[in-house]
Amino acid sequence: MSLFALDPRLERDSTLLMKLGLCQLRLMRDSRWPWLLLVPQRPGIAEIFDLTPLDQTMLTFETSITAKALKQATGCHKINVGALGNQVSQFHFHVIAREQGDPAWPGPVWGYGEATPWTDSARTILTERLLEAI
Amino acid sequence: MSLFALDPRLERDSTLLMKLGLCQLRLMRDSRWPWLLLVPQRPGIAEIFDLTPLDQTMLTFETSITAKALKQATGCHKINVGALGNQVSQFHFHVIAREQGDPAWPGPVWGYGEATPWTDSARTILTERLLEAI
Repeated sequence: MSLFALDPRLERDSTLLMKLGLCQLRLMRDSRWPWLLLVPQRPGIAEIFDLTPLDQTMLTFETSITAKALKQATGCHKINVGALGNQVSQFHFHVIAREQGDPAWPGPVWGYGEATPWTDSARTILTERLLEAI
Repeated sequence: MSLFALDPRLERDSTLLMKLGLCQLRLMRDSRWPWLLLVPQRPGIAEIFDLTPLDQTMLTFETSITAKALKQATGCHKINVGALGNQVSQFHFHVIAREQGDPAWPGPVWGYGEATPWTDSARTILTERLLEAI
């Protein structure tokens, strides 16, 4: 039985915030949007139906908790969630805070323009608020 | 207590395939991609965390069943799932069959170009295969 190992591109594009019951909760290195990833720590998962029913349920609860905390921490207008995997096949679920008038609004953020790095202070503030809300 | 009523824009952009335990399963009127919607038949839901925990679990199982059936019915390369709601606030969950080299590949389909209507025969074939797989 193989072990879970994070895809190198997800590793490069995001930083670990905390480990939940099933998923790694990670922050994308892109300050244009508070943008989180949930990555189930299971090997060989590409689609949601590759997860066991119990893990699907865990993913849903972790998604819901994360989305609610992100909304609370940012006061954003809308949460976008989704799993595409067109470029990185390891299953990862996006949870993104959107504002009316943000750079890609009302379109999706995926593939839009170039990432803008976080400043240390902005990332610290967001992370603290978020972890408090979870 | 208010009753569930489908948003007029979702009604216009998609057709009902069947009712599952929680959701209406609908087909988008856009033949560029086999593109399904799951709409929980609950009033006043905008975000995933507005659903009760039981409904969240139902949504996950219905998503998983639908995604697996869509993959089986189309033989597609990848399933994309997500809930944005930037334009239509009533909660609706997208389940989309993607192919390498499809019009928007590897980007997201939301907001991409103009919808192409289904021919009756193509829609019938897809619908029959899909309902058989569910």
